[in-house]
Amino acid sequence: MKLASLKHGRDGKLILVSRDLTRAVHADDIAPTLQAALDHWATLAPKLTQRYDALNDNQVSESFAFDPSVCDSPLPRAFQWADGSAYVNHVELVRKARGAQMPESFWTDPLMYQGMSDGFLGPRDEIELVDDAWGCDFEAELAVVTDDVPMHLSADKAGQHIKLLMLVNDVSLRNLIPVELAKGFGFFQSKPASAFSPVAVTPDELGDHWRDHKVHLPMHVTLNGEWFGSPDAGVDMTFDFAQLVAHVAKSRHVSAGTIIGSGTVSNTDRSKGSCCLAEKRMLEIIDQGEAKTPFMTFGDSVTIDMRDSQDASIFGAIEQTVTRYIAE
Amino acid sequence: MKLASLKHGRDGKLILVSRDLTRAVHADDIAPTLQAALDHWATLAPKLTQRYDALNDNQVSESFAFDPSVCDSPLPRAFQWADGSAYVNHVELVRKARGAQMPESFWTDPLMYQGMSDGFLGPRDEIELVDDAWGCDFEAELAVVTDDVPMHLSADKAGQHIKLLMLVNDVSLRNLIPVELAKGFGFFQSKPASAFSPVAVTPDELGDHWRDHKVHLPMHVTLNGEWFGSPDAGVDMTFDFAQLVAHVAKSRHVSAGTIIGSGTVSNTDRSKGSCCLAEKRMLEIIDQGEAKTPFMTFGDSVTIDMRDSQDASIFGAIEQTVTRYIAE
Repeated sequence: MKLASLKHGRDGKLILVSRDLTRAVHADDIAPTLQAALDHWATLAPKLTQRYDALNDNQVSESFAFDPSVCDSPLPRAFQWADGSAYVNHVELVRKARGAQMPESFWTDPLMYQGMSDGFLGPRDEIELVDDAWGCDFEAELAVVTDDVPMHLSADKAGQHIKLLMLVNDVSLRNLIPVELAKGFGFFQSKPASAFSPVAVTPDELGDHWRDHKVHLPMHVTLNGEWFGSPDAGVDMTFDFAQLVAHVAKSRHVSAGTIIGSGTVSNTDRSKGSCCLAEKRMLEIIDQGEAKTPFMTFGDSVTIDMRDSQDASIFGAIEQTVTRYIAE
Repeated sequence: MKLASLKHGRDGKLILVSRDLTRAVHADDIAPTLQAALDHWATLAPKLTQRYDALNDNQVSESFAFDPSVCDSPLPRAFQWADGSAYVNHVELVRKARGAQMPESFWTDPLMYQGMSDGFLGPRDEIELVDDAWGCDFEAELAVVTDDVPMHLSADKAGQHIKLLMLVNDVSLRNLIPVELAKGFGFFQSKPASAFSPVAVTPDELGDHWRDHKVHLPMHVTLNGEWFGSPDAGVDMTFDFAQLVAHVAKSRHVSAGTIIGSGTVSNTDRSKGSCCLAEKRMLEIIDQGEAKTPFMTFGDSVTIDMRDSQDASIFGAIEQTVTRYIAE
C-alpha cells in the first residue's frame, strides 16, 4: 500500500497513491490523517488496502492524477522522530576526518538521537535557511514508521511493528554541530526540519528488496542535477530496522506513528558516492588534506529517490532547493 | 485559565478546572483536546476563558468535582518536548561532582535536549521501570507551552508565544546517562516518559509571581512523604523562558503545542534542598566523598507541587510511585 498526505491544515489529508505513482484517491473518509490511520492501524489498514487494490485495478471512479508537489510529508508532524546511525562506516569516516578514534561499542550499540518532529517539510518544500554560513547539508536516509511498541521488547519481536517506510532528507547544519555536540546534549539547532518522500509504503511494496529488516536497493542522490551517490541501503547497514526499533523501546513504551531513521546511507565502496556532503568532504580531507566540496548555499538543490528493478520510483522523489529565510 | 485533560483515547478530553482546583467543566465542545485548542489558540482561548470565568463564578450548572487521578498529562502526547538546563548552578554541580570543569559558554548559551513526546505519564501514573539498577531519578521542573513561533525571532519577541505553564517530573535513568552522553548524541534511553502536572495554567494565573518570564515561587518536592526540597524557581534561573523559546526557534519554525522545560530547579542556597536525587548525591560526593542517598527503587514515591502565597496548589501535584515493569 502507498499512502500520502495532501497539504491541508496541520496534519494533511490522507490519500492512497497507485503503485506506479500516477493516480490517487481520497481516503480521509476512512482516516482523516495518516496519524489517525496509524492510531487505529489494525482496524483501518484492511479498509485502506481494499481501496488501494481497487485504485490499482482501475476500479475507483473518483481517482485523480497524483502530484507530489501538493503533498506534505506523509506525517506532516509526528509525535516522535528518532534517527539512528546504522551505517557505522559513515560514523567511522566522520571521526577519522577529525583524527578521532571511534569507540568499538559503536559496532554493537546503536547511536541515536531524538529529532524535532513538530513540523516536517513536504517533499518539494524549500529548505529555508537564515545563514548559509551554518553549513547546510542534506542526508539521504530511509525511515520506518511503527505502530504501538511495548517497552523492552526484543529485536526479534520489534520487526513486526514496522508498518511503513519512507525516504528522508535529514537536513543538517554542519557548522553548528561541533559546538552543540561539545555541550554533550546532542543535536538541537543543528538539526532543523527534515523532509520525507511524497509517499509512505508498506514493507510488502518492496517485495524481495525488503529482507532482514533492511531495504536492499540503491539510494539515488543528485546535487544541482548531477549524480552525487547511489549506495545500496542494504549494504554496510550494521543495525537493521528491527534492532533500531528495539533500541528505541528499551526503557519506554513507543507510540504509533513513531518514525525511526537509518542515518545517512553509506557504503564502504567509494565508487557508490555519498548520501551527504559531509561524507564527501571527509573523504576529501582524508585523501587531499582539505575539503573541496562546499556546503549548500541559496539556490542549490538536492534530489533523493529510490527505484525498483524496473527503474520505477517507489516513494516518489524528494526534490528541494535551499532558499534564504529573512527573520521578522 | 486552568486546563486539564481527562484520560480518554490518545489525546485526552479537554476540561476547564476552577482556580481553586475543586470543580471542573467539560470543554471538548470548544476544542476536543488541548492540542486542538493550541492549534487554534487565538480563536478558541476567548471562548475557553468565558467558560472558565463562569466556572469560577459558579455560573456553570454541569460542573463536576475535579479529580487529578483521572487526568492524563495536559498534553497526553505532544509534537515537541525540548528540555533546557536553565539552572546552571545545577549543571556546575554535576560537573564538579565528577571533577570536570564547566565551560564558560554554559552561562551564555543554553543547554537543551530534545526529549521524547509520543506518550507522557499522567500526574498520578506509576513510573514503570524494568530494572532499578538503571538509577531512577525524578527532576522537578517548570515548562511552558507555546503557540506557533516563527524561525529566528529575538528573545524580546519570544515571550509573547508562551501560552501555558505546567510542572514536570522529568524522569531520568542516571546509570544509563554516562554511556549515552559519551556517545555524543545526547540522552535517549536514559530519558523515558516524563509526567506533567494535572493542570496547565495561563501565565496570568500566576499574578505577580510571573515576571521576567520566570516563575517566582518555590518548587516543593517530597520523597516517600519526607521534605526533599523547595528551591525558588525564580532564583538562580540563568536563562528565562523567553530566551529558551528563542533558543528553540533559532534555525526552525516552532509549532503550537511545543513544550519547553526549564531543567531541574536548583538554588545555590543549599538550605532549600534539591529537586532531584542526583543533585543531592553530588553534594554528598563533594562534602563526604561518596553518595549516600540511593536512587529510587520499586515502591518509592515522589510528589512535586507549587503553591501560591495562600498555600493553595496552582497546578495540582504530581504524585508518582515507581513500579516494576515486566517485559513480555
